[in-house]
Amino acid sequence: MTRFVSLETRDIRFPTSVGLHGSDAMNPAPDYSAAYVVITTDAGDGHEGHGFVFTTGRGNDIQTVAIRALSSWVVSRDVEETLQTLGDLGRELTGDAQLRWLGPEKGVVHMAAGAVLNALWDLRAKRADQPLWKLLSGLSPEEIVDLVDLRYLSDALTRDEALGILRRAEPGRAARTARLLSTGYPAYTSTPGWLGYDDEKLARLSVEAVEDGFRFIKLKVGRDLEEDVRRMAIARAAVGPDIAIAVDANQRWEVAEAIDWINRLSEFDPYWIEEPTSPDDVLGHAAIRAGVAPVLVATGEHVANRVVFKQMLAAGSLDILQIDATRVGGVNENIAILLLAAKFGVRVCPHAGGVGLCELVRHLSMFDLVAVSGSTEGRVIEYVDHLHEHFLDPAVLQRGHYLAPTMPGFSSQMHPSTLEDYQFPDGRVWTTQGKS
Amino acid sequence: MTRFVSLETRDIRFPTSVGLHGSDAMNPAPDYSAAYVVITTDAGDGHEGHGFVFTTGRGNDIQTVAIRALSSWVVSRDVEETLQTLGDLGRELTGDAQLRWLGPEKGVVHMAAGAVLNALWDLRAKRADQPLWKLLSGLSPEEIVDLVDLRYLSDALTRDEALGILRRAEPGRAARTARLLSTGYPAYTSTPGWLGYDDEKLARLSVEAVEDGFRFIKLKVGRDLEEDVRRMAIARAAVGPDIAIAVDANQRWEVAEAIDWINRLSEFDPYWIEEPTSPDDVLGHAAIRAGVAPVLVATGEHVANRVVFKQMLAAGSLDILQIDATRVGGVNENIAILLLAAKFGVRVCPHAGGVGLCELVRHLSMFDLVAVSGSTEGRVIEYVDHLHEHFLDPAVLQRGHYLAPTMPGFSSQMHPSTLEDYQFPDGRVWTTQGKS
Repeated sequence: MTRFVSLETRDIRFPTSVGLHGSDAMNPAPDYSAAYVVITTDAGDGHEGHGFVFTTGRGNDIQTVAIRALSSWVVSRDVEETLQTLGDLGRELTGDAQLRWLGPEKGVVHMAAGAVLNALWDLRAKRADQPLWKLLSGLSPEEIVDLVDLRYLSDALTRDEALGILRRAEPGRAARTARLLSTGYPAYTSTPGWLGYDDEKLARLSVEAVEDGFRFIKLKVGRDLEEDVRRMAIARAAVGPDIAIAVDANQRWEVAEAIDWINRLSEFDPYWIEEPTSPDDVLGHAAIRAGVAPVLVATGEHVANRVVFKQMLAAGSLDILQIDATRVGGVNENIAILLLAAKFGVRVCPHAGGVGLCELVRHLSMFDLVAVSGSTEGRVIEYVDHLHEHFLDPAVLQRGHYLAPTMPGFSSQMHPSTLEDYQFPDGRVWTTQGKS
Repeated sequence: MTRFVSLETRDIRFPTSVGLHGSDAMNPAPDYSAAYVVITTDAGDGHEGHGFVFTTGRGNDIQTVAIRALSSWVVSRDVEETLQTLGDLGRELTGDAQLRWLGPEKGVVHMAAGAVLNALWDLRAKRADQPLWKLLSGLSPEEIVDLVDLRYLSDALTRDEALGILRRAEPGRAARTARLLSTGYPAYTSTPGWLGYDDEKLARLSVEAVEDGFRFIKLKVGRDLEEDVRRMAIARAAVGPDIAIAVDANQRWEVAEAIDWINRLSEFDPYWIEEPTSPDDVLGHAAIRAGVAPVLVATGEHVANRVVFKQMLAAGSLDILQIDATRVGGVNENIAILLLAAKFGVRVCPHAGGVGLCELVRHLSMFDLVAVSGSTEGRVIEYVDHLHEHFLDPAVLQRGHYLAPTMPGFSSQMHPSTLEDYQFPDGRVWTTQGKS
């Protein structure tokens, strides 16, 4: 019998605050980081499961400790049995009565469970010699639903409804897989729009994005209204009227303030307003949506779990649901959220960027296309052009589309040299910079 | 100038799982624990600030690490200036862009901020030679509102409205303080109703509770419907028709299931149903409330922050709001929640029990009585009769009422021998038991 022999963690940080990449109204100077986990077995096949939680710097140590604390849930378990019943393990990890007290199902402990589950999905896909999106897309509707914790969802999504969604998508799986392999999945780019960039850089990067094939860009807003009016005017002038420009406030506003602010920007035709206020405010988002239409409302990268998404869908709080690969309870809970979105007919446009989020989340959108919603209409995956070089299987874009990854696994593995050089605080990059 | 010189943490755990104290439908065998913090200064006055987060065992180590990670926010700061502007520190701690990513304002990192703030409140009250409730009750309305982070609340509670609530309560402060000092604050007891107790013990403890002066007891439910019918019948027979019996499901149910289950118990006249489903489910609670009336709906011990409470109040999700002393961002955020409850005219009946929650939360209810809501009508603080002996200033009950504490501080300090003996995993109690 093959067993898990180790679960080890690393505190990996990138000094992104130096160039103000990633600067927004709530995050003036993040150091993009990964609380990273590697799970090994005694199979002797060379395969490891890699996973991580993306953070923005301080606190990456706390997140790393929380992941390591889950070691006893994995080490010494039967590998094959565990990997074939990841739905059960997911429910065990997020349902453990004592750990649950620290959430429940939110924050550090929940993201730790997600990292461990994602690492196990990476391992399962590597052992199956398939990229994760393809592995998931080949499961039966029953196998997919068994991965999901349906607890607290029954007033919005029953097991039978979930099965119905998946069965309706079954006939077209092969055709959509073929389309995906030939043209990829539409993307939009947030690269031009960080608050830390000056006007010239904003205009230049906006033009370059369109030249690179993107039909959709995003700008950070929310620090200063006049500044936002000026920056929106620059971006709109740079890309012309046919390119969508979304704006992202990173939770900066009160409800009424969000409505006023967006209405001031409406002359520049913003496509969606992202994270206008607290991600916990289901009813606040519903009020904002009513107040800013036809501008769409998008949120999700900080939504703690499927129960909050369930309410946002039921209350009509959003037009665009933004899953995040490392915020919730791993692949398992993201499947629940994709099913909820399909049930309510709401489009999923994932959050990405950070460290490795582009690499991971493309698998989820591609699975959604093949096996759940069956559509890319009005759907785009975020793309930010940094830190991809640290991954064995980096995101590749062509004409504004994510290509389908073909390397086995969840694309979550960083290069050994990255894991060594960016380890905080004693890796080469940090000892050289003398930063803390 | 006086400065903070250290912030040290301890992982303190009590082997409560041995006697099944604290057993409920979601927590079959908790080891009640405290992620404990001690803050010292160079004042030479012998005063330390003590605080903690209550947890149920596994994960107490994670919580402890998270508190220790906040050390740099405190150590070397000016003591007097910091203690006089704890509202500012609260906003700094919960607003730090990098730590915020791990919440925001929820889970491990948020509770860590709460523990540090609570320890600083303990220190401020000790230095002022007053119990915390009395210190808070002596602040002006402006000083109180300055403690609160009003962000994300403006659609429900403005600064002016908060000031209005506090000003209306000012004239009666002295009279209510006098009443509090003479008769205390009403309590109810959860001691009889743990699921791990057999029928005989349930009946006996129920009778004893009434003999001790309680007019209100609480039973855990939600494991098995027939078992709950039997146990409710036993408790009702034991205490007669005039004693309130609340029931607590600890998040066990789906929305429809909660309504059905409570309606099956209605013949025994349950007073409130507590935590019927996920604490994140604002709209689910509203549906349950509509479905179980006139049984009241209570929740809050796992509600992550003021933004979720705001929505529960706005949506009519609850009749009874249950604050918890260590779940949210400390005294500061609990004041925000007390103000929200007063605005919506909803009664606050705190969650207590665990380790030290009775000791802490009585200060908040007493402050609420004197300076915020001005009333104890229909309000009771939970009481559970265990682990009080570990505190320097334990909760004292008389005829079913919490007496007002008179010892300076927040009653959050444990005996030195407890901190030594119950330290996990190397304290005497744990090495003797050989438990892990």
